[in-house]
Amino acid sequence: MRHTSAKAPSVVDRVLDVLGAFTPERPALNLSELSRRAGLPLSTTHRIVGELARRGALERQEDGQYRIGLWLWEVASLSPQGMGLRESAMPYLEDLYEATHENVQLAVLDAPDVVYVERISGRQSVSVVSRAGGRLAAHATGVGLVLLAHAPVEVQEKVLSRPLRRYTPRTITSPEELRRVLAAIRRDGFVISDRQVELVSLSVAAPVYGPGDSVVAAISIVVPVEGAEPRTLVPAVRAAARGISRALGAPRASRQSTH
Amino acid sequence: MRHTSAKAPSVVDRVLDVLGAFTPERPALNLSELSRRAGLPLSTTHRIVGELARRGALERQEDGQYRIGLWLWEVASLSPQGMGLRESAMPYLEDLYEATHENVQLAVLDAPDVVYVERISGRQSVSVVSRAGGRLAAHATGVGLVLLAHAPVEVQEKVLSRPLRRYTPRTITSPEELRRVLAAIRRDGFVISDRQVELVSLSVAAPVYGPGDSVVAAISIVVPVEGAEPRTLVPAVRAAARGISRALGAPRASRQSTH
Repeated sequence: MRHTSAKAPSVVDRVLDVLGAFTPERPALNLSELSRRAGLPLSTTHRIVGELARRGALERQEDGQYRIGLWLWEVASLSPQGMGLRESAMPYLEDLYEATHENVQLAVLDAPDVVYVERISGRQSVSVVSRAGGRLAAHATGVGLVLLAHAPVEVQEKVLSRPLRRYTPRTITSPEELRRVLAAIRRDGFVISDRQVELVSLSVAAPVYGPGDSVVAAISIVVPVEGAEPRTLVPAVRAAARGISRALGAPRASRQSTH
Repeated sequence: MRHTSAKAPSVVDRVLDVLGAFTPERPALNLSELSRRAGLPLSTTHRIVGELARRGALERQEDGQYRIGLWLWEVASLSPQGMGLRESAMPYLEDLYEATHENVQLAVLDAPDVVYVERISGRQSVSVVSRAGGRLAAHATGVGLVLLAHAPVEVQEKVLSRPLRRYTPRTITSPEELRRVLAAIRRDGFVISDRQVELVSLSVAAPVYGPGDSVVAAISIVVPVEGAEPRTLVPAVRAAARGISRALGAPRASRQSTH
């Protein structure tokens, strides 16, 4: 698949190509699908898949299809996203969910996308496009706008230099407008992202600061547009974001607020 | 590290040895620690780590230590534990947490251990040993006892044939007693695991059934022993387990209950 060097792919690359063949749309694949998606000969795929399955990195289902295995899931739960951030954030996300009964999300930036690290949604909440481990374009989401607003300038410029995907007629697709929105977020400390992903919902998002006082994540609450009073949600979202920042050891969150 | 064949480790094995060097106690490692833990020469470790980092399977921190990367975390979120089970279970776990404000857990069996797939805990709940992605010995936990009770006979016998680790004076360590408890769980449909992991807490656990009508997971609620009335929690835990089973498409959970 994608290799940055022009050399022949190494075995490490081939292993990662096999693992990267799985997608949210196709989390279970048979050998020939894996071979095709990884761009590897069937014999090579067979050997690598066999070794991965023997170690529990893949699991063979009863129907012969393979899935990502429990061993790999456990190892991956040790990532900063899975461990420190998520564990610190959960109690505050819980509080926010319980106070509102709306969808609550925690996301990190992998420009030009946001990756959802956690999502809490009740059975009555509005349905949302995101899922834990899923992605959306950063410029179209509340969490993504917050993360872009605090990203290094070179990351911002890279996103601004490429076409901005339109999800709805209200998605920000003009670089000039995006620059204005990002500046407003740095000034206000939150954003209301109105019907940018789906026409039925809006989100209120705020930044989460880490120990180095840089923004490491963002949280948001997603509510139906119908009857929404997003301004009333801002204090709760900002308070939860501040609580998580404090739990992560952010100096900013430990200082007294000035207003 | 552990290889089932006597042959020299393959590159696939070496990649997995590097990934498997990370543990909950040491989620960040430098090159020489990775080399030592993976049992590989420093030069080999350097090359593999470089390739893994280039693809985002590992991330290099500012202090030079490596951690599991966002790419691998995203891929691993496609595992059955990360995706189907967890997503189906979350709304019911939320309900249970909200009704009780106690720790709620979702676990799967990887005998002789249980692996915690999800844990919801508020800031006021009793502290628990488990964490999402963490492990405990199955025979000592409520979820583990439920999963063992419904495991294939050969899995049960393997656990019963080995020493049963004692966490507290109340941990079940006699194979005969464990057999009796497992039989009672199959009869009753739940278990109260009393101070087996820590002397300050107990858990109430019930089985989650999958589409094939076999037990695929277990849920539990963990409460402080002080003032606990575990019997009053049984209906809520069983109802939540039944809801998750239904969401997973278990035939059993769609049938009318007889009592």
